[in-house]
Amino acid sequence: MRALKSKYDILRQKIYIVIYGSNTFAGKLFDLTLLGVILLSVLLVMLESVQQLDAKYHTFLIVSEWIITVTFTLEYILRIICNRKPLNYIFSFYGIVDFISILPMYLSFFIPGSRMLSVIRALRLLRLFGILDLVHFTGQESQLKLAIKASRTKIIVFVYFVLIVSILLGAIMYVVEGKESGFTSIPVSIYWCIVTLTTVGYGDIAPATTLGQIIASCIMIMGYGIIAVPTGIVTAEFANAKRNQSKDDSSRTCPSCTSIIYNEEARFCHHCGEKLTND
Amino acid sequence: MRALKSKYDILRQKIYIVIYGSNTFAGKLFDLTLLGVILLSVLLVMLESVQQLDAKYHTFLIVSEWIITVTFTLEYILRIICNRKPLNYIFSFYGIVDFISILPMYLSFFIPGSRMLSVIRALRLLRLFGILDLVHFTGQESQLKLAIKASRTKIIVFVYFVLIVSILLGAIMYVVEGKESGFTSIPVSIYWCIVTLTTVGYGDIAPATTLGQIIASCIMIMGYGIIAVPTGIVTAEFANAKRNQSKDDSSRTCPSCTSIIYNEEARFCHHCGEKLTND
Amino acid sequence: MRALKSKYDILRQKIYIVIYGSNTFAGKLFDLTLLGVILLSVLLVMLESVQQLDAKYHTFLIVSEWIITVTFTLEYILRIICNRKPLNYIFSFYGIVDFISILPMYLSFFIPGSRMLSVIRALRLLRLFGILDLVHFTGQESQLKLAIKASRTKIIVFVYFVLIVSILLGAIMYVVEGKESGFTSIPVSIYWCIVTLTTVGYGDIAPATTLGQIIASCIMIMGYGIIAVPTGIVTAEFANAKRNQSKDDSSRTCPSCTSIIYNEEARFCHHCGEKLTND
Amino acid sequence: MRALKSKYDILRQKIYIVIYGSNTFAGKLFDLTLLGVILLSVLLVMLESVQQLDAKYHTFLIVSEWIITVTFTLEYILRIICNRKPLNYIFSFYGIVDFISILPMYLSFFIPGSRMLSVIRALRLLRLFGILDLVHFTGQESQLKLAIKASRTKIIVFVYFVLIVSILLGAIMYVVEGKESGFTSIPVSIYWCIVTLTTVGYGDIAPATTLGQIIASCIMIMGYGIIAVPTGIVTAEFANAKRNQSKDDSSRTCPSCTSIIYNEEARFCHHCGEKLTND
Repeated sequence: MRALKSKYDILRQKIYIVIYGSNTFAGKLFDLTLLGVILLSVLLVMLESVQQLDAKYHTFLIVSEWIITVTFTLEYILRIICNRKPLNYIFSFYGIVDFISILPMYLSFFIPGSRMLSVIRALRLLRLFGILDLVHFTGQESQLKLAIKASRTKIIVFVYFVLIVSILLGAIMYVVEGKESGFTSIPVSIYWCIVTLTTVGYGDIAPATTLGQIIASCIMIMGYGIIAVPTGIVTAEFANAKRNQSKDDSSRTCPSCTSIIYNEEARFCHHCGEKLTND
Repeated sequence: MRALKSKYDILRQKIYIVIYGSNTFAGKLFDLTLLGVILLSVLLVMLESVQQLDAKYHTFLIVSEWIITVTFTLEYILRIICNRKPLNYIFSFYGIVDFISILPMYLSFFIPGSRMLSVIRALRLLRLFGILDLVHFTGQESQLKLAIKASRTKIIVFVYFVLIVSILLGAIMYVVEGKESGFTSIPVSIYWCIVTLTTVGYGDIAPATTLGQIIASCIMIMGYGIIAVPTGIVTAEFANAKRNQSKDDSSRTCPSCTSIIYNEEARFCHHCGEKLTND
Repeated sequence: MRALKSKYDILRQKIYIVIYGSNTFAGKLFDLTLLGVILLSVLLVMLESVQQLDAKYHTFLIVSEWIITVTFTLEYILRIICNRKPLNYIFSFYGIVDFISILPMYLSFFIPGSRMLSVIRALRLLRLFGILDLVHFTGQESQLKLAIKASRTKIIVFVYFVLIVSILLGAIMYVVEGKESGFTSIPVSIYWCIVTLTTVGYGDIAPATTLGQIIASCIMIMGYGIIAVPTGIVTAEFANAKRNQSKDDSSRTCPSCTSIIYNEEARFCHHCGEKLTND
Repeated sequence: MRALKSKYDILRQKIYIVIYGSNTFAGKLFDLTLLGVILLSVLLVMLESVQQLDAKYHTFLIVSEWIITVTFTLEYILRIICNRKPLNYIFSFYGIVDFISILPMYLSFFIPGSRMLSVIRALRLLRLFGILDLVHFTGQESQLKLAIKASRTKIIVFVYFVLIVSILLGAIMYVVEGKESGFTSIPVSIYWCIVTLTTVGYGDIAPATTLGQIIASCIMIMGYGIIAVPTGIVTAEFANAKRNQSKDDSSRTCPSCTSIIYNEEARFCHHCGEKLTND
């Protein structure tokens, strides 16, 4: 009985390494095939939404999608079983994503349209970063994250400003332009204002009156200057992160006390006063 | 009589703390509810501008808007009464905004369309910054302000250039393209030119002739390079502000040798090994 | 005779100071009025191009424009007469601009449409920089110029690349999309490609086939990355210019030899070895 | 026999210098004329694609294009013959480009449409960099390359993120907007999403429902922030490259004290006053 138990444990161990690990050959293989299947399933959902294709290959698409869903379900169950702390996985980001990406197909019994939502599987593609050279990429990622995180508050403040401005300008354009040229309501005008400030400019709504065009021109030139602000913020943060990083690279450690010395011209430890040797 | 007076003073004091302060619980509550009401009122005006909604809920919208306006009026009066220096408030930015945001409703008796202008209340949403963690946000703000202020002149010079360029290019396009492809007059061509330079590109006006398209291509590539300039300016200022800030935060001079110490945790001069006093 | 001559000389002197100088009251007044007239004349040409306005006020516009032209002509003659070295003025940037901005009206006798070209007067508005606080603005300008000049070569290399890419992608899109969706010829496709790469996106021409849309998406994401390059170049140059400038600010001069010391930590002159005092 | 051989060798030598070299007069002339011919041939293909021109000058275009193709073929053969290591050339970037740019014309016997592909000759225009002052331009190029290469990984990570986001948002918009407003399938929605995120905004597809417009607004503001990221990355890399370059150009270490000297004109250590030897 116990032998069997231990056997089971060993098996579970093995599966765990294959599924979660990516440094063994089997693990890498598993991860890559999984990634392939995810990509495939996302493509399937996308193609299914194309009328003429769906008309032709409906049954094929449905069947293959069901096969994939079942595979994912099994994988999900395996992940839970072979994990010593299943809850850690279930309530981790990927755990939730994995769960949500199976759900829609089963929901589609009750809610017809919901099958489309299985596109959420695309999020599983983020696993790629887990598979590729971790250190290197996370290095890149972390730097991205750092800079983005550092500039988050500023960006929010900025967006908040932009929104208030959009509301005001939207209302003004609504009053100026009136209905006939597409500014049918203030919300629509605000939508137009955002479309313009972000320099997207669909052209589905465009000012027709002279005054409207003058105001629009001002808004564009504003948006022109405004687009510089978030870029400026993020760039400054990036440059900052970079500088700090390169600082760390050129840093030494004091031989006596272990404090780090950033200043490459330093001749004495700033902490214990120990004489340093520059070599 | 005097007792009453003092009572009245105390009451006013209390109200003042609630309305203007935001560090007491009552104050915070008041500010947040106020913000909620402002947001609500802005939404109301926006919804009112939507035909079908206005048709359905006209009376409801009007009534609720009147209620809000009256509330704001009372608040405005209270702000004036309970303030020891009412004029300071009345002629402050928020004072004026508060006043203007009440006005339109009352004006709507005489000028029908003017009610839409009460969207200006959106400006009151800026109060949010006053409510949130002041130090932190103003820190962010001030840095934004600093960088923007520093790059203001440059931006103005730049915009002035762009406008002159737009006028010239607009006139050229007007001559080249002529009426049938939407370039009905020089002002319109200038409008088109700004739409293009800012990379908004509505497409309501677009060159049809070959020569026109060639010129347009040049303008776009120009605009491409041009968009880099304000971004460059702002970014440089940001980076600069950042560098200075981080420098100023931590820099002393060694008493013995005159070398500057940036590391504020330094206990010894990194150069002559002199003991430093952290004060 | 000579007395008269000298009188004439004095008068010419006076006129010279008024016209060319801008530090005397008369000079400033003259410059500002001139600027006003230029602005007015530009507006007139612009308005004239608006059909309905031209229909109404044709004679008024023509007459006022002739008045302005004559005024400018007189000014031009005066500038030549009162200048000791007329040729310097005539062949200077402003001299040529001034001449060209008079020409079109006189040409309009022979070439009807040419009157529109008097919009070139807009270039005279650049005089503003001459009038405003010179030091300050030229400071700004020079920094702009410096950064732009420094990044010129890089930008040209870059634009050359972009053009070659556009030609190739344009041809591909022409082959892929074909005529019905607006890609009527390779030049047009190239035009479309530039419109897309610069993120202007008029939408007068847009891919209709699936393959076309896929290629377009790639082009956009490319353009997305590409737009970063010129910005990066210019910004880096700006930051560089800024750093150098701030260096100059924090520089000292050696008391013994007059060489400039940038390093604020320097205790000895890097040139003559003189001991420096940090105060 | 041998004399003839050596003669032939000398001739080949001469030709080699003319074709491959660009520092002799003959070489420069050859390169420039070649460049001219390439430009001409690209223009010819472009013009040929314009219906009305092709109708008029069909024979002329065909003939001249054949002449050019033959010329290029001869040049290609010459390049191979006169080169001591032909394979090095044949499998070099330019070798392949040269070959491909001849191919389409000969293929056009079998595949009619393929003649258009001879636009690929545009790639030969890159030779310009080889002709112009090498040191200077490659300097510029290398810096461009360096910065772009350094930010490559980050950009890829970033684009991968953007694509995943586009898939999700595309699917959502497809579900929200439905068919009537152009979102006919998920791939199309993704296409629209990329068009929006990159701020291109054709307007061939635009949200019509209120919810759709709200989501679109969010996407735009996102794209607004997102566009800042690649710019930030590239700029930071540029600035970094610049800083390092200018640092490396001028930095020595003082022999007596270990302080680093950046100023390459320094004759004395800025710190200990030690005499420095410039070698």
